[in-house]
Amino acid sequence: MSQKTYHVAVVGATGAVGQQMLNTLKEKNFPVGKLSLLASKRSAGQVIAYNGENYTIQEAAPEAFEGVDLALFSAGGSVSKELAHEAVKRGAIVVDNTSAFRMDPNVPLVVPEVNEHDLKNHNGIIANPNCSTIQMVVALKPLHEKYGLKKVIVSTYQAVSGAGAKAVQELKEQTQSILKDEAFEPSIMPCASDKKHYQIAFNAVPQIDKFQDNGYTFEELKMMNETKKIMHLENLEIAATCVRLPVETGHSESVYAEFEKGTPSVQDIKELLKTAEGVTLQDVPEEQIYPMPALAAGLPDVFVGRIRKDLDRENAIHMWVVSDNLLKGAAYNSVQIAESLIKLGLL
Amino acid sequence: MSQKTYHVAVVGATGAVGQQMLNTLKEKNFPVGKLSLLASKRSAGQVIAYNGENYTIQEAAPEAFEGVDLALFSAGGSVSKELAHEAVKRGAIVVDNTSAFRMDPNVPLVVPEVNEHDLKNHNGIIANPNCSTIQMVVALKPLHEKYGLKKVIVSTYQAVSGAGAKAVQELKEQTQSILKDEAFEPSIMPCASDKKHYQIAFNAVPQIDKFQDNGYTFEELKMMNETKKIMHLENLEIAATCVRLPVETGHSESVYAEFEKGTPSVQDIKELLKTAEGVTLQDVPEEQIYPMPALAAGLPDVFVGRIRKDLDRENAIHMWVVSDNLLKGAAYNSVQIAESLIKLGLL
Repeated sequence: MSQKTYHVAVVGATGAVGQQMLNTLKEKNFPVGKLSLLASKRSAGQVIAYNGENYTIQEAAPEAFEGVDLALFSAGGSVSKELAHEAVKRGAIVVDNTSAFRMDPNVPLVVPEVNEHDLKNHNGIIANPNCSTIQMVVALKPLHEKYGLKKVIVSTYQAVSGAGAKAVQELKEQTQSILKDEAFEPSIMPCASDKKHYQIAFNAVPQIDKFQDNGYTFEELKMMNETKKIMHLENLEIAATCVRLPVETGHSESVYAEFEKGTPSVQDIKELLKTAEGVTLQDVPEEQIYPMPALAAGLPDVFVGRIRKDLDRENAIHMWVVSDNLLKGAAYNSVQIAESLIKLGLL
Repeated sequence: MSQKTYHVAVVGATGAVGQQMLNTLKEKNFPVGKLSLLASKRSAGQVIAYNGENYTIQEAAPEAFEGVDLALFSAGGSVSKELAHEAVKRGAIVVDNTSAFRMDPNVPLVVPEVNEHDLKNHNGIIANPNCSTIQMVVALKPLHEKYGLKKVIVSTYQAVSGAGAKAVQELKEQTQSILKDEAFEPSIMPCASDKKHYQIAFNAVPQIDKFQDNGYTFEELKMMNETKKIMHLENLEIAATCVRLPVETGHSESVYAEFEKGTPSVQDIKELLKTAEGVTLQDVPEEQIYPMPALAAGLPDVFVGRIRKDLDRENAIHMWVVSDNLLKGAAYNSVQIAESLIKLGLL
C-alpha cells in the first residue's frame, strides 16, 4: 500500500533550524515526495544532501512555491512576511517558525501536545511558537488541565544557537580568545540587529531580542503573549525574564506556577508529567538527577525536574524545564505540526 | 595622630575568598597592625605578600589566635566550627564567612547596608551571609523600607568561583577540552562533596550545594532563611532556585518582588536605588545598559537593572541584580562588617 507523499519546501534550508528541519523530516520518516530547498539568493546554487540525494538550493521567490504542499519557513520574519502568502496563494500550507504571524488572530499558534485542535482554524498559515514558549507550555499543559493555571513567573537560561550559527561561532571564538587572554570584539550577541554587542563567553546577558517601550524585551513579551494564546488563557498572569548564556544548545527555564484549584503535592505533579505527551521527567534529587542543557541537546523531549512545592503557598510549585531549542523549540515542533495536519486530514 | 590598629587574622588565607580578603583590607586601608595568615596544615610555611611585606602561613590552630583582635574566617564550615570559639575565647571577634553559624540565634548575620545595628548583639561571632543572599538584600532593602516586602521569587545565575579556585580551574580546562573536542572527566562541579559530578562548561546546572529532604538545595534554603533573618522578616514569602553557570566570577539574579503597600513605578524604584548605599543603578534599556557579571567582576558594588513593572500586579516588580560573589558576596562584606564594628565602638 503506497502512502500519500507531499511536496515539501524548506525555506531557510541552510540555517541552523533549516538543517534541523531536514534532520527531523528524515528521522520522523515524514512522507516527503518532492523536496524543494529554498534560501536567500546568496545561498542559491549550494548543494545539500537529504536522505542520500543531493539537492540544489533555489532562491526563495514566489514561483518556487508552485506545486508545493507544505512549506516550512525558517528564514527570518521579513522573508516570511514577503513569501508566506505567496506560498499559500499557490496552494501550500505554511508552517512558519518566525514571529511574523504568531499573534495574528487569523493564524493558529500551535504546539501539538497543547492545542492541536487549533489547526482546524488555519487559513493557510500556521505559526510555530518561540522556542522558549514551546518547552514551557508543554510542561504546563498537564498541570493546567488538572489544577487550572493562575500565575506563571519564568526566568530563562537560553542557549546561543537560538541566535543562529554565527552566534555559536562567536561564542566559540570568544571563549578561545578569553582562555588565551587575547583581545576580542563582540559583533553579534546579544542581538545582531541591535546597536551594542557584548561578551557572551563566561557571561550572562539579560537581553534577548530588542527592548520594547515597557522595558521588557521582545523575547519576554513573546513568551508572555504566546503562552496566553496557545493555552487559551487570556487572563493568565505571566511574567518572563529572558537571559542569554554561554551554552551552545538547550534552553533552561526556572518556572514558578500558581494554580486556581487544588494544592498538588510534588508526587501529584510528577504523576501528571510522567505520562504527559512530549515530557520526560528527570527528577530524583537524592541521586542528583535533574535536566541540564548538556544532556538535552539533540533530543526532542521536554525535560522537567527540580519540582518543589512553594513553601509559602500551598497552591504553587517550582520546576526546571529544559529542551533543545533547535528541536522541540523549532524544527521538531514544526514537523510535528505537519504530522498533525496529516492526521487531521488537513494536508 | 596615630590611628588605633588591630591584630587581624585571616583564616583560609590561601583560598579564593581569603585572597580577596587581603586585597580588600589593603584597598580599604583597614587599620591592620599585626597580620596573621592562617590556613590548613598543608599550606603552612607558604609565603604570601601583603602590602609589600612577606607573611608565612601558619597552621590554623587554637593558639594561633592569641592576641588577635579580629579573625576573618573563610576556610570552610568545619574549620569555623572547630576554631571560631577558640578565637573568641582568646579575645578575638570573629567574622565568619561560612554557613556554620549563620542561622544560630545568638549570632548576628549582617550586611552593613541592611542591618548594621544587629552587630550590637554579637557574642564574639558575626556571620557573613551567603554570597547570593547578600547582593539580593542590598537591592531589596531600600524597596522594603518604602513599600514593605511581601513576596520574593528569585532565580540565580551563579558563577563557578563561588565553589573555589579548583572549580574555576575545572571550568577552564573543561571548556578547552570541549573546544578541542577532547574527552574530559568532571570531578568537582556541581558540588565537590556530593556523589556525582557534571559538565559545567557550556552548561547550566540546577544544583548548588546538596539537596535537602524537601527537594530544595541547601543553597536555596540559605537564600530563603538568611534573607528572612537579615531583613527581620520572619513571615516573608520567599522562594529561590539556584543555578550554576559557566561564568568565572559574578552572580546574577532574576528577582520578582511583591510589596505590601503602594504600587511603585519603575521611576520610583530607580529613584530609591539611585541613592541606595552599596547599589549602582545600571538601567537604560534603550541604550542596552544593564548589569552583567563580566562587567561586575572586580567591583564591590551591587548592580541593579532591568527594572520592570509586573504587567499583572500593580504592587510587583522584576529586576536583575549582579555582583562579584567574591567581593560584596564574601570578602568585601566581611571587611565592611569589621569597619562597622570599629565605627560602632565594638572592636
